[in-house]
Order: sequence, then C-alpha cells, then structure tokens
Amino acid sequence: MNSHLKFQTPVYVTSPLIPSKEKVFEKFDAIWTSKWLTNHGVMHDELERRLKDVLGVQGVSVFNNGTIALLTALTSLDLPLGSEVITTPFTFPATTHSITWNRLKPVFCDIDNKTLTLDPQRIESLISNRTSAILGVHVYGIPCDVDAIKTIAEKYGLKVVYDAAHAFSTEVHGKAIGTFGDISMFSFHATKLFNTIEGGCLAYNRPELQEKIYYLRNFGIKNEEEVVEVGINGKMNEFQAAVGILNLDLFAEEKRKRKKIRSIYEAELSAIEGIDVVMIPEFATNSMEYFATRINKDLFGLSRDEIYNHLKDYNVFARKYFYPLCSDCEKYRYIPSAGPANLPVANKIKHEVLCLPFYGDLSEERAHRICEIIRTLRP
Amino acid sequence: MNSHLKFQTPVYVTSPLIPSKEKVFEKFDAIWTSKWLTNHGVMHDELERRLKDVLGVQGVSVFNNGTIALLTALTSLDLPLGSEVITTPFTFPATTHSITWNRLKPVFCDIDNKTLTLDPQRIESLISNRTSAILGVHVYGIPCDVDAIKTIAEKYGLKVVYDAAHAFSTEVHGKAIGTFGDISMFSFHATKLFNTIEGGCLAYNRPELQEKIYYLRNFGIKNEEEVVEVGINGKMNEFQAAVGILNLDLFAEEKRKRKKIRSIYEAELSAIEGIDVVMIPEFATNSMEYFATRINKDLFGLSRDEIYNHLKDYNVFARKYFYPLCSDCEKYRYIPSAGPANLPVANKIKHEVLCLPFYGDLSEERAHRICEIIRTLRP
Repeated sequence: MNSHLKFQTPVYVTSPLIPSKEKVFEKFDAIWTSKWLTNHGVMHDELERRLKDVLGVQGVSVFNNGTIALLTALTSLDLPLGSEVITTPFTFPATTHSITWNRLKPVFCDIDNKTLTLDPQRIESLISNRTSAILGVHVYGIPCDVDAIKTIAEKYGLKVVYDAAHAFSTEVHGKAIGTFGDISMFSFHATKLFNTIEGGCLAYNRPELQEKIYYLRNFGIKNEEEVVEVGINGKMNEFQAAVGILNLDLFAEEKRKRKKIRSIYEAELSAIEGIDVVMIPEFATNSMEYFATRINKDLFGLSRDEIYNHLKDYNVFARKYFYPLCSDCEKYRYIPSAGPANLPVANKIKHEVLCLPFYGDLSEERAHRICEIIRTLRP
Repeated sequence: MNSHLKFQTPVYVTSPLIPSKEKVFEKFDAIWTSKWLTNHGVMHDELERRLKDVLGVQGVSVFNNGTIALLTALTSLDLPLGSEVITTPFTFPATTHSITWNRLKPVFCDIDNKTLTLDPQRIESLISNRTSAILGVHVYGIPCDVDAIKTIAEKYGLKVVYDAAHAFSTEVHGKAIGTFGDISMFSFHATKLFNTIEGGCLAYNRPELQEKIYYLRNFGIKNEEEVVEVGINGKMNEFQAAVGILNLDLFAEEKRKRKKIRSIYEAELSAIEGIDVVMIPEFATNSMEYFATRINKDLFGLSRDEIYNHLKDYNVFARKYFYPLCSDCEKYRYIPSAGPANLPVANKIKHEVLCLPFYGDLSEERAHRICEIIRTLRP
C-alpha cells in the first residue's frame, strides 16, 4: 500500500447537493409562518409545476420517496391481480419490491451486455398470457431500448413503466426520457443528482392518470365524504419540497462540475487495461448520477471485490451497484426466472461493476488521486 | 346567523405544534454541516432512543409516516398470506388499507357504543380458522379493551396490533399504552399532538422484532451483500427527526394548554341538550389529540351534518371523524363483514360524531365563542 495516497477522511460514493443555508432558512421561515407543513402545500404545488418543465412531461406527481412513487405507478395502471411484470434483476431492490407489494409477480429478464438494461431480444420469450406489464430501469441513466420495448408492448398490449431513478433530465434522441412508456419514476433521494432529502416523483403524458395518482398518494381520499382507492401515504412534505425548489436552480451547475470529474476519470481509467468505463450512448444525454466501471479480472489482475476492498484501505468507499442482483435476494431467488441460466449476462456483470466516488465537490485532485490509487493496485 | 360571532379567519380543527425557528435552525445547521440528510443519522437515532422512554416501551422504530409504519407492523408478524384480520370500521382509511396492502383480508367488527373501539363481545363470533390477527384502534385516544382482547388473542393464538395514532403518551391503569399487543403504531403527522411534520413509529416490547423491522423499513437490506426481506422505504429523514426531538420538549406543555381548552368545551357543551362530549375513561390518561362530540339530532334539533355546515358559515371548520366508515369505502363495502347489519353501532355513530377545533393556541376566547355559536344554532 502507498500510504501517501491514503485519504485522511473517508471519501464516499456520493455527497448530496444542498442549497445554501440562508436560502433554505428563508423558505423554511415561510413554511413556519404559514404553519402549513404538509398535505399539498404551496411549495409542493410549485415543485410539481416546475418539474413538468424540467422533465418535459405533461404530468408530475411528487412523493415522499421514489419507492412509494413506483409502488403507486403500478397500482394506478390497474394491472390484473397476480399478473406478471417483466423486469430487470440489475437494479436496486425497490424495483422488484414495488411489483411484489402490488400483488404482481416479477419475471426477470436478462440484460444487454453493453447497455446493462433489459435485453429486448429476450423480453418476448418471457411473455405469457399472464404478462401485464414491462418494468424497465434506465440503470446509471443509460436509457432502455425504449423503441423496441414500445413495439413489443404494443404487439402484446402491455403497460410500460420505467424506473428512471438515475435518469433525471436525460434526453433520448432529443426527447425527454419521461415521455416514454406509461409512467416513469424519478428518485429524489439525497444520493441522487437532484434531491429533496428523501423524495421522488411520477412523470407521465397521460393526463387521465393525474387524478388517480392524486387519490392513491393520499389514502384514496377523493373528498371528505368519499374514499375511492386503496391508497397509501405518499405525500411529500413542505420542507422536502422547499429543498427541491432550491435544488432546481443548482442541479445544472452540479452536472457541469460532475462532467469535469467524469472527464478526468474517463481519461485516466480508460488507459488502464482491465478497467472499462460504462458509457452513456451518444444518442442520450448523461444524467451524471453515477460513475460506473467494469473490472476485467483477467486483464487487470485483481477482481472487482479485491479492488473494492483495497480501495477501503485508502479510505475510498466505492459501491458494487448492483450486486447482489434482485434475483439473488432471499425472497426472489426461488422463482423460476431468477435462475442463473436465465440471466447469464446479469450474473456475469454483477461481479464486474464498481461505482466510484462521484459528485461535484469531489475535487479534481481527489479524482486524480483515486485514479492513481487504482493504477498502483494493479499487480 | 349571528354575524358578530363569525370568525374573521378560518378556524381549523387543528394547528400543528412547532418548535421555535431558532431552535429548528440550530438543528438544521448541524445537519447541513454533516451533510448526512437521511438513512439512520444521528437525529434519527436520538429520537428513537428518547421515544423509548417517552412511550415506556423496550423498542421503537421511527418511520417516514404512520401508514408505512402500520403496513410494516403487519408485515413483520409474518401473518399467513390471505388470512383475516379483525378490525374496526371506525377509523381513518389507512388502518384498513394497511391490511389490504399486506395481502390480508380485513374483517370488520362493530364497535362499542361508549368506547367507540372494537366491541370485544363481537370479536369472537368473527373468528374463523382463517383469522390471524386483531388490529384495534385507540380512537381519539380511548383505549381498546386491551385485557379482553388479550384474553381472546391468547385463546385463539392471534397476533394483536394497535393503531395508536391518537394515543401518544397515553397510560392505561398506569401502564404505557404501547406495551399492549405485539406492536403499536403512533402517528407523528402534523395534525397529531406530537409531530415530526410527517412521521410515525412502531413501539413494541419484543426485542426480536427490532431487527426485522429495521430491515423491512429499508428495502429488506441486511448489509451490502444481502437483501433478506421484501421491504419498503419507511425511513424518517434527519429534518423530520430534528423537529421531533424539539417537539419532545414541548408536547407536555401543549397538552396542558389543550386541557384548559377541553375544560371550557366540556363545561359549556355538556350543558347543551343533544351534545355529548366523548370522554376518556377514568382508568386512562387523555392524550388530548382530539375533542370529539356526539350530536343527538332529536334532542338538539339539528343533525350533525347541519351543525357542521352551519359552523362553516361562522368560519369554523369542524371535522366528521370518522365518517365515512372504512366499511363504506368503495373498495371495501362489498366484503361480507362490511354490511350495515354487521355494524349497527358504527353505522349509527358515524352520523353523530363531530370533532371541534382543538389545539393549544386556539385561545380560551375562541373556545368560548365556538360554544356560543353552537348554543345559538339550537333551533
């Protein structure tokens, strides 16, 4: 180990974007004075309004977190009880859980070796008369093959939901990513490019969904006399919304700073044999949410797990997103589609991926130093 | 209408307890500096620790809201899929929804005419070999008949969960209310005596539940390598926790102020024929969360709905908690136990109850004036 390269304090995979205290206090002051702390307040409504422009969609509903949003997206589509939803195993567990919580059955589909998203070639063979929807994930902000998925969905009459947790403000061939499929979910967790502390939203271009999602988010309450849905509490409070409003003014600059960090990582790491940088395709904009690499053990000389552990010695806390696969989870591993034979690509990639520290304030010096550490790790 | 009694600005049923801005900003400043915004931060852990004392229980797990907490309580008990949970229709819809979201079946049991909680005399006749649990509600902070329910539960081997949303810091025969049953849920919504903007917690005396609830609240994640449950995102963020820590120092004083308001209401309204004040039994302490009345149309000369509407003309926004019943909701009204013949008491009471404005800062003058308005409404 090269002790001089070790960081004095831990460097984590991310650090949240936060507005200045002064601006936050100003907003909070207004909330305090109004005493309207939650339940569709003025900040909540302003954030929804502004997000429609930012995300380029006709409808936005904000939520207390992305998981409750995704859960509600599936509920709002009235999929038949117990029907099957084709989805990717290469994602955060919330994706699969949101299917299960809706009394639907996840069917895992393998991913493409390059895009790491649902392999459209494999989707069709998994469709049965029990299939009701496809739930794709724009993992690391890499868009799913939205055109191929659209064609399949139309052919079989399936709904399409996208987990766009990593794809805030992404465009695909110049079109806003939230315009594809029936509904897209964006996460606003502290670890995301744009955050509301905890939070998330649903984005959609079908105006008729707005009312139903509104009810589902608030216990199914239509008015003081009528409860029309089995809803949940998905309400975003005024403090979360205030942080969101302020971060809307900041995320573009944060993206620019991350772009600079990314260019350092790309330049230095692509020169190391055995390290592949996961790229966003040219037809899409980069949401700059994650910096993901793939480790080739044979070429680099160390496995992903070995690099991960060595980096810890240097006080660098990388993350193995997305290992384990959802199909590896105790509650899912016994369903037929979870078998490794059905998911050869995902099961290979889960041992290769490593996400490196990536946020605007990381500093160029630290980015260079992390690259230097990785170079020196090479046996 | 007596125009001189009309309020200039709306008087709502409640107004949230909030700490001083200065104290809140001090806490928020610490969060800003640490940049640890959510995911089991220091404020979160401090709040859980202090709530154990306040609620007099061995285990407390805080949540982003009470609904997700109640949902998780039922999940944590591993009730058989599709089994039946005996519950009250006289409650907020979240109670019944939490059963349905868990793929369990609500079975409505009528309430007692005096306590407005589950009638233990009727519970036994609803038990079948499919029954797995009883979900009681300490409505308005009136304790369920916890001893009778315990006896029944032990006889039939049922789990017991209490929705204690309205019963923060209540004691029953000198015992903390959260010690009854397997798990109790407390709500910390802005409308509750003690609030964390949105929020809630589970309280329990079985230490083995702590770990399972911890996983379920955070996607089932045990560690970076293992996902062991179909969890949800129920995490309370640091800002909510900070408001909670500060409100812990304030709620006792708020209760004292509400006690004064309550004594005015009690004295003046009990003198009006046809208005009955809903009382907390002497063996329990009063959580002071709601001030509920029952209107006898024959004796008063106006129905509850008529009084409710007239009060609006005076800018007084009372609430008909809990009308409609959960058994009236579109998604539940067709299940057999939802029939009015099974629920005669609840179906009578739902037309009688009216909750009046009740919070520490209401002011004695306004309490008197609201009583005066009600007196003048009498035909």
